[in-house]
Amino acid sequence: MNRCDFSAWELSRRARLHAALDAALPPAETYPARLHGAMRYASEGGKRLRALLVYGAGEALGLAPEQLDAPALAVELIHAFSLVHDDLPAMDNDDLRRGRATVHKAYDEGTAILVGDGLQTLAFEVLAASPQLGAEARSQMLLGLARASGSRGMTGGQQADLAAEGASLSLAELEQLHSHKTGALILACLELPLAAAPAASPDSRLALNRYGRALGLAYQIQDDVLDVTASTGTLGKTAGKDISSVKSTYVRLLGLEAAQARAETLFEEAQTALAGFDERANPLRDLTDRIRARRH
Amino acid sequence: MNRCDFSAWELSRRARLHAALDAALPPAETYPARLHGAMRYASEGGKRLRALLVYGAGEALGLAPEQLDAPALAVELIHAFSLVHDDLPAMDNDDLRRGRATVHKAYDEGTAILVGDGLQTLAFEVLAASPQLGAEARSQMLLGLARASGSRGMTGGQQADLAAEGASLSLAELEQLHSHKTGALILACLELPLAAAPAASPDSRLALNRYGRALGLAYQIQDDVLDVTASTGTLGKTAGKDISSVKSTYVRLLGLEAAQARAETLFEEAQTALAGFDERANPLRDLTDRIRARRH
Repeated sequence: MNRCDFSAWELSRRARLHAALDAALPPAETYPARLHGAMRYASEGGKRLRALLVYGAGEALGLAPEQLDAPALAVELIHAFSLVHDDLPAMDNDDLRRGRATVHKAYDEGTAILVGDGLQTLAFEVLAASPQLGAEARSQMLLGLARASGSRGMTGGQQADLAAEGASLSLAELEQLHSHKTGALILACLELPLAAAPAASPDSRLALNRYGRALGLAYQIQDDVLDVTASTGTLGKTAGKDISSVKSTYVRLLGLEAAQARAETLFEEAQTALAGFDERANPLRDLTDRIRARRH
Repeated sequence: MNRCDFSAWELSRRARLHAALDAALPPAETYPARLHGAMRYASEGGKRLRALLVYGAGEALGLAPEQLDAPALAVELIHAFSLVHDDLPAMDNDDLRRGRATVHKAYDEGTAILVGDGLQTLAFEVLAASPQLGAEARSQMLLGLARASGSRGMTGGQQADLAAEGASLSLAELEQLHSHKTGALILACLELPLAAAPAASPDSRLALNRYGRALGLAYQIQDDVLDVTASTGTLGKTAGKDISSVKSTYVRLLGLEAAQARAETLFEEAQTALAGFDERANPLRDLTDRIRARRH
């Protein structure tokens, strides 16, 4: 795809996501209004990379966008829930997220806890209610999303991250942490669409798994690099926070240049994993380049 | 059933639940060990009323206990998650639960937030993974559980409870709060089994719905009564907490005697709703009497 086609694709898929999000979130004035207002606040903004990965992978498998709206929305809701809880004072204690006040700052701590709880539940509700998916696909997606989000996935990674505060991790320990904290949900973005594509070949399953593992790790290394090289204004969250605290990062363990080089290699690996797909994977290829070039 | 038969039934169903719970919870030593240890801690104890309601209602519909293990476990995991989050300092700030330290006291606040998150996810995982249910039943149960737990159900009720601190609610407002906070999940215990019983008559569906609404409300009124009449040792949580704080309760709004009488009437209504079921509903009938007679 040329750049213009990719922009049109991205705009269209983001519009689908936002329509689905608006339909799924309870109206802000419904009981209890404070919670529903805060859930909408917490769901706004963001790069929507995870949703775009779902559309990109699903379309590479020949699925229609209609079949991908529910899983795309579900992964974004899980991501939004995790950010709200991770930002809490008892966790990372962040005041700024996506360029504005975190939920516990804009509302209060109790509400922020409940916002995260409600967004998590809504992710599962959206999948369970999707009329575009058969019961078998729904059920498989629900299982995949639950495993990726739970204590053996994303939530477990956040616990490991809490435990790692002030500790020096080895590279293997850091990769284990991030393969849970961010990697599991990114991998789920690639694997959920497979539940709606039972005819997908073992090769394409394996390829998407490889792609997801490489991309997830590349993305996290890039996060550590941007924490050092970008400004708070560009990031929309506090820059330099990880490197200034006693926290293990890829930059600290590898050095800035080697970390950058490692991320580049992993982005190449991700692209190579997609080699067997036809032109329907072009949005996913272009999205990968876009992520690689991100500055926040 | 005579008392002895009911005790045998209860023991057997509790044993099923605990076996399912032990199999579903990640071993305490697996990564991240602190989280998995705390998830086990948070899941121990409790009256298991919600699981017993699932078995009781499902067996009244002619289902086998094997078909009910997953929903029984799922509602208990949702209940456990809600207790851990409700006890947090930013919420009800309780130190004692089920006779011992709350999770944020025994561990720490960040871990307690993640324990709740992980238990919630596990509830959905358990349903999505159940080999005893067909894809359609799984999917319907997941939808029912998500709706009952989310911002339009239990989580919304907790938000309303936070907002009601220090406020004077009318009886209608108090019922709206509790129909969300405790009523929605109790109702789900009766409705989840229906997803595995597609041949159930409209009459029995309606009857279980009536039963669940009456029981849920009776249970909450009884909670307010016990907060006044029972001791902390018997309750396993701090007694007199609600009546000593500026909090709306049924006892405060109706007076102790009228609240007790209202609970009794609702327990009668619940029993009457079961009149059309055959003897397979006897465990549910006996369970209702047991709840009615509870002292904690």
